[in-house]
Amino acid sequence: MTQLGELKTRLAELADLDNIGHLLEWDHNTMMPPKGAQSRSEALATLGRVSHDLLISDETAGLLDGANGELDGAAPDSDDARIVAVSRRRFDKARRVPAELVAEMARAGALGYEAWVEARRRSDFAAFVPFMERNLELAHRYVDCFEGFDCAYDVLLDNFEPGMKTAQVAALFADLRAELQPLIEAVRERSDRADDSCLHGSFPTDRQRRLVADTLAPMGFDSDSWRMDDTVHPFASNIGVGDTRITTRWDESYFASALYGAMHECGHGLYEAGIVEELKRTPLGHGESLSLHESQSRLWENMVGRSRAFSGVLAPRIGELFDMNVDPETLYRAVNRVQPSLIRVEADEATYGLHIVLRFELEQELIEGRLAVAELPEAWNARMKDYLGIDVPDDARGVLQDVHWSAGMLGYFPTYALGNLVAGQLWERAHADIGDLDERIAAGELGPLREWLRDRVHRHGAKFEAGELLERVTGAQISVGPFVAYLKGKLSDVYGI
Amino acid sequence: MTQLGELKTRLAELADLDNIGHLLEWDHNTMMPPKGAQSRSEALATLGRVSHDLLISDETAGLLDGANGELDGAAPDSDDARIVAVSRRRFDKARRVPAELVAEMARAGALGYEAWVEARRRSDFAAFVPFMERNLELAHRYVDCFEGFDCAYDVLLDNFEPGMKTAQVAALFADLRAELQPLIEAVRERSDRADDSCLHGSFPTDRQRRLVADTLAPMGFDSDSWRMDDTVHPFASNIGVGDTRITTRWDESYFASALYGAMHECGHGLYEAGIVEELKRTPLGHGESLSLHESQSRLWENMVGRSRAFSGVLAPRIGELFDMNVDPETLYRAVNRVQPSLIRVEADEATYGLHIVLRFELEQELIEGRLAVAELPEAWNARMKDYLGIDVPDDARGVLQDVHWSAGMLGYFPTYALGNLVAGQLWERAHADIGDLDERIAAGELGPLREWLRDRVHRHGAKFEAGELLERVTGAQISVGPFVAYLKGKLSDVYGI
Repeated sequence: MTQLGELKTRLAELADLDNIGHLLEWDHNTMMPPKGAQSRSEALATLGRVSHDLLISDETAGLLDGANGELDGAAPDSDDARIVAVSRRRFDKARRVPAELVAEMARAGALGYEAWVEARRRSDFAAFVPFMERNLELAHRYVDCFEGFDCAYDVLLDNFEPGMKTAQVAALFADLRAELQPLIEAVRERSDRADDSCLHGSFPTDRQRRLVADTLAPMGFDSDSWRMDDTVHPFASNIGVGDTRITTRWDESYFASALYGAMHECGHGLYEAGIVEELKRTPLGHGESLSLHESQSRLWENMVGRSRAFSGVLAPRIGELFDMNVDPETLYRAVNRVQPSLIRVEADEATYGLHIVLRFELEQELIEGRLAVAELPEAWNARMKDYLGIDVPDDARGVLQDVHWSAGMLGYFPTYALGNLVAGQLWERAHADIGDLDERIAAGELGPLREWLRDRVHRHGAKFEAGELLERVTGAQISVGPFVAYLKGKLSDVYGI
Repeated sequence: MTQLGELKTRLAELADLDNIGHLLEWDHNTMMPPKGAQSRSEALATLGRVSHDLLISDETAGLLDGANGELDGAAPDSDDARIVAVSRRRFDKARRVPAELVAEMARAGALGYEAWVEARRRSDFAAFVPFMERNLELAHRYVDCFEGFDCAYDVLLDNFEPGMKTAQVAALFADLRAELQPLIEAVRERSDRADDSCLHGSFPTDRQRRLVADTLAPMGFDSDSWRMDDTVHPFASNIGVGDTRITTRWDESYFASALYGAMHECGHGLYEAGIVEELKRTPLGHGESLSLHESQSRLWENMVGRSRAFSGVLAPRIGELFDMNVDPETLYRAVNRVQPSLIRVEADEATYGLHIVLRFELEQELIEGRLAVAELPEAWNARMKDYLGIDVPDDARGVLQDVHWSAGMLGYFPTYALGNLVAGQLWERAHADIGDLDERIAAGELGPLREWLRDRVHRHGAKFEAGELLERVTGAQISVGPFVAYLKGKLSDVYGI
């Protein structure tokens, strides 16, 4: 066997261990009895340590060198060249981080998650402080393993958005904020133009389940290879070929939360389910750029789900299931209502970006030591007032609302807003390539868009960094323009601005 | 750190990997979408290989030797001495089996399971033959790794019943068969004495779920650390401290299947949940003797569940839930009806042993090459006629009924009948130790028995082999007497013999 062949065998094992980790996480958040938390954190720590040891072994180092030598003549963007390059990048990063630190981070993340669930339930930030401080301390130890970066935050960001720099994000976010604030201001003056009362009422969960099932089926959800479960903080996970799992939470007084949330997670699921099988047991077999990942979920949730075209599909279905009258235009205006609000995952497309800018700033301040963990609620609440003009009534609906920090994921948030930007660029290009895209969506046919995305984006998995993939598909780097143009079009429909 | 300390750290990691494997299996049989099977088999193979490599490494060998040296003075039945002894035994066994063979067996088992589900559904044994042949071929390759055994079957049996020899089983089974056959003959002449018509009817699954929940709660099922799910072939699995999972299948026309099946699996669950926490991340942290394991499930299912005392608890509950009249004595007679039947897991206590003797014999013939896989249905059906006097209408209700062979588990079946024998011995001793045991059970109080079992059996986990534990608890080796005496008592109640 060639060195490349042996390397691939080892990488397949590493991919299996990754998938096992995904199953443990999925189970942890959907199925596990609460008292199993301690054992689960031990299991995750051991799995991480075993996987880490296998990755950073001298044997892997030798195989990487040998495989690299065998690539002679392979195109730099061939699968093999990229598999070796991405493996080398992961190897170099992993070699710098001691196995014990990896295990400690996994353990602290699992315990932090449990503490967060309880702290959020009781809106008790103080109870969560020691877990957050521990995660922050471990993040610092992680950053200390690296050198040659512009700022500490770069090191964390790189784990969620390979190749992306903090400075680039800051520049994009400055543009984005400059665009969003006047838009939100203009909308505020016309707040009577959109009324979302049709979304509020009494919507039995079993009926909502049918609505969601009917909506996801044409997207590509298929019970032979997908499943959907309930959880506290929805997520999607691909456990292997033919095994994609999404999660939802249900609000009996507001069906939009589950409906568009499920489309969001299904978008994530479609990305990973669409990666070609040849890449599945390689380091390219899961999406690695979370901006690309989020572009897929937001594109399905907002650009498709909340479009005028798809509102024509949803409205009669909603009317029938919940025995109510709702016309498509009313639904369209309701689900695109812009109003500053407390909860990120329920925020509209216009204010969403500011929720992210806030988190991005707080994370940088935490990492740079300009803000103490105990001061987070105050800083959070002040900035919510400043950016969105609203008062935060309690920490459950404020600083405790998101799962990420509990699990030690610092540097993750920016990718959400970057995902919106990427989605805007892909949406523009999809319309150029599929002439009758809106008509297809209006007819409930989601296959053409899914296949376009699979062909342009999904199939490649982690083969390209976000910027490179966007260049290939749209000819441009990540930018704010197309997303803002899309948003203005919608706000023009709804608010006449 | 001492060598013993280092060994224990490594053993804790191995225990974590075992627990992860249990979760993968649980998920495979309860949650996984069907198309995920191929990926799951790859993941299991990788997990097995990683775990195997860690166990058989030179480093482990050194730690075992070092730890052994540090045991000087420790009592031979101390936790530490047993941890080292059991680890040494596993190490020696694992060193003999190549990692590749372990991985192949895991992979073949996962694919075999999928094929069996489908073959059983269509009652198509031919479709299952190549998978069974593959499992048998791998079993031979496994046996070939060992030497110094009396017969090939000893090697397989030892994986499910450490220390037990085929000859010992054969002798016990000869005694058992000699006792059972006249009993069954006598019952046949009085078959009008028991009527189980009260068990048949229409029993909605949601009501059955309530019956099962009400029954398991006093046994110790607690939703903070247990869960129950649906599956094809029920099993129990302990994933870690505070995480015990049992599974059930539901028959809307026959509630006894789910009710007593759930008590059975809960009995398994209680065993593992009752192991003291100090042993949980050691090789003693799961039950290793399947006879002991099965003694716990059968004791709860049959000796408690189908007792006259507990029938007095169940009958009014059943009457209320299913809106029917059933008095305790009618229920007691119905659930102890003896009648030769097709399905092992639904067999009564008297005929059950013969189902096992049949499988024990067929397995030996397969392993010794006296029977080809393709000939299995014919041999099965002939022996069912011979031992139980009944005709097998199709393979789904015959040779395809059990999951074990599909997953490559040869040598497992005898432990079921041995479990009955052990349960008989423990039941006898529990009555001697707890003077008012029957009165407690009649009052629905199952705690005293559970605590007695935890203290005598559960807490030790895999610390003692079955024979040794029985000696400690009852003063005797495994024998047929107490079980047969118990059975005769019951048949005297029901059939007046």
